[in-house]
Amino acid sequence: MKDSDCESFRAQHKSLVRVIDAILVSVSETSNFLRQGDSSGQVGSTNRFGDHQLKIDVKADDIIFSNLRACGAVATASSEEKPEELDLEGHGFSVAFDPLDGSSIVGANFAVGAIFGIWDGPGLLGRTGAQQVAAAYAVYGPRTSVVLARPGATGGLTVDELSLRDGEWSVSRHGIRLGEKKVFAPANLRAAADNKAYADFVSACIADKYTLRYTGGFVPDINHIMAKGGGLFVNPASTSAPAKLRLLYECAPLALIVEAAGGASSNGKESILSMQIDSLDRRTAITLGSQDEVARSEHCLQV
Amino acid sequence: MKDSDCESFRAQHKSLVRVIDAILVSVSETSNFLRQGDSSGQVGSTNRFGDHQLKIDVKADDIIFSNLRACGAVATASSEEKPEELDLEGHGFSVAFDPLDGSSIVGANFAVGAIFGIWDGPGLLGRTGAQQVAAAYAVYGPRTSVVLARPGATGGLTVDELSLRDGEWSVSRHGIRLGEKKVFAPANLRAAADNKAYADFVSACIADKYTLRYTGGFVPDINHIMAKGGGLFVNPASTSAPAKLRLLYECAPLALIVEAAGGASSNGKESILSMQIDSLDRRTAITLGSQDEVARSEHCLQV
Repeated sequence: MKDSDCESFRAQHKSLVRVIDAILVSVSETSNFLRQGDSSGQVGSTNRFGDHQLKIDVKADDIIFSNLRACGAVATASSEEKPEELDLEGHGFSVAFDPLDGSSIVGANFAVGAIFGIWDGPGLLGRTGAQQVAAAYAVYGPRTSVVLARPGATGGLTVDELSLRDGEWSVSRHGIRLGEKKVFAPANLRAAADNKAYADFVSACIADKYTLRYTGGFVPDINHIMAKGGGLFVNPASTSAPAKLRLLYECAPLALIVEAAGGASSNGKESILSMQIDSLDRRTAITLGSQDEVARSEHCLQV
Repeated sequence: MKDSDCESFRAQHKSLVRVIDAILVSVSETSNFLRQGDSSGQVGSTNRFGDHQLKIDVKADDIIFSNLRACGAVATASSEEKPEELDLEGHGFSVAFDPLDGSSIVGANFAVGAIFGIWDGPGLLGRTGAQQVAAAYAVYGPRTSVVLARPGATGGLTVDELSLRDGEWSVSRHGIRLGEKKVFAPANLRAAADNKAYADFVSACIADKYTLRYTGGFVPDINHIMAKGGGLFVNPASTSAPAKLRLLYECAPLALIVEAAGGASSNGKESILSMQIDSLDRRTAITLGSQDEVARSEHCLQV
């Protein structure tokens, strides 16, 4: 982001900027305590009652709620850890978030993430992903970075990457756009054991020499596509391996970011952004990434 | 590591401990500058001549050579970045290392790593992996960790995980052992396009509902297996996709660690640790991980 863009955005969207700043502070704080964690996925000292140790996702959840409440611009918030709508007593926006995406890979010290979707006004139920005014995800890897879709200068959304260095955030990539890349992340691969369309799709990608990258973390897998400038994340379902990703806390914010960068999303029938959030815990199959890749993979979602 | 174990190891292996300490200091320093990097894989400020920016793998290389030289216990060192044998003018050991494993995924902020093999006496050419006295790898993720195979109290090698917190190293897991787990990391998957045995092997893993994790970084993919207590990393070759992993800088040290934890390694014919390092740049196909998984995958390596 050029400095003039940034200042103009901050001036025009003062209330939204308070929410984004609260998210950035939360990510800095979460990053600091993750650095002190261990392979058990816990953080803090253990006393003989064990009550000074917290699971890191609980700690991340506390940090985010606390900062969103303090910023004064959040009316409603809901977390994947506490799937209910909480009144944060602020005015302006509603935020849904996944405080720590990738709990199964924390022990392996893989990059993990956090996801944030932002809607105008109070309340989350009944909304669609398309109604989000902004969305962001954080990547906790060797560096700490955030990818943010926010209102652009000329209408529509702009997607930037911000990097944390010495406690300060700065824009490290401006106006991220997705083209086509032969890179694929086949999620929920167990579904391929009884979803033949998915098994055939994976075999076709292998025969066509696609590059495989699949960490098992939704955020890092999407960030890989954003970093490479294209690719596919596909998470089908099957009878024995149902859809696990949550529409509100995970799929809708990431779909907003990918579509804002010129990519696509689908649940097999329509864009993820068209789905109504009729339950906080609603799950969905999803394909996400470059437009052509989404088109060629949506037949195997089995929704 | 219990404190008594640690003290006894430090007393008995004073010279080796100097090398290990030099490695741990290098990992701390590398971790700090990685935190300041950006998605371009470079670190440092750019002046108008561009000469204050360094590629992060070059910077990591400099840090490690400098610490190995300063410790006084390294006679010969060689890096994947500079594949020649350098005389470091110390007495005791030879060290081969890969200063930054995972350069293709640095931009995506995935966890990356470093690899270190340690031999007694001067010189690396003509050795085998089995002759290493110790080996280590570092994981730069949300945390910074090292897994170290070193001489144990009762003969043989012991494998520990060390974690960096507030600039200090401590043992976070002692005596890591691998059992059997249905987890697989299929590397160089492009080889499956013209290596039918590999394509069939991957299809069999999918049909058998193995969990897929493949970040594209050799170190994090092995660390996932060490963290889960078992699994398989398999990197076959084919006519159009030859073996790329280096025996000296990558395969031999990681094979030592995995075998010391009760796992296995193979190039399709024999243990990686039996291969003579007849060239610094020697490449090999490799399968590495739980014993049963290595046995069932080695037929598809095509060496």
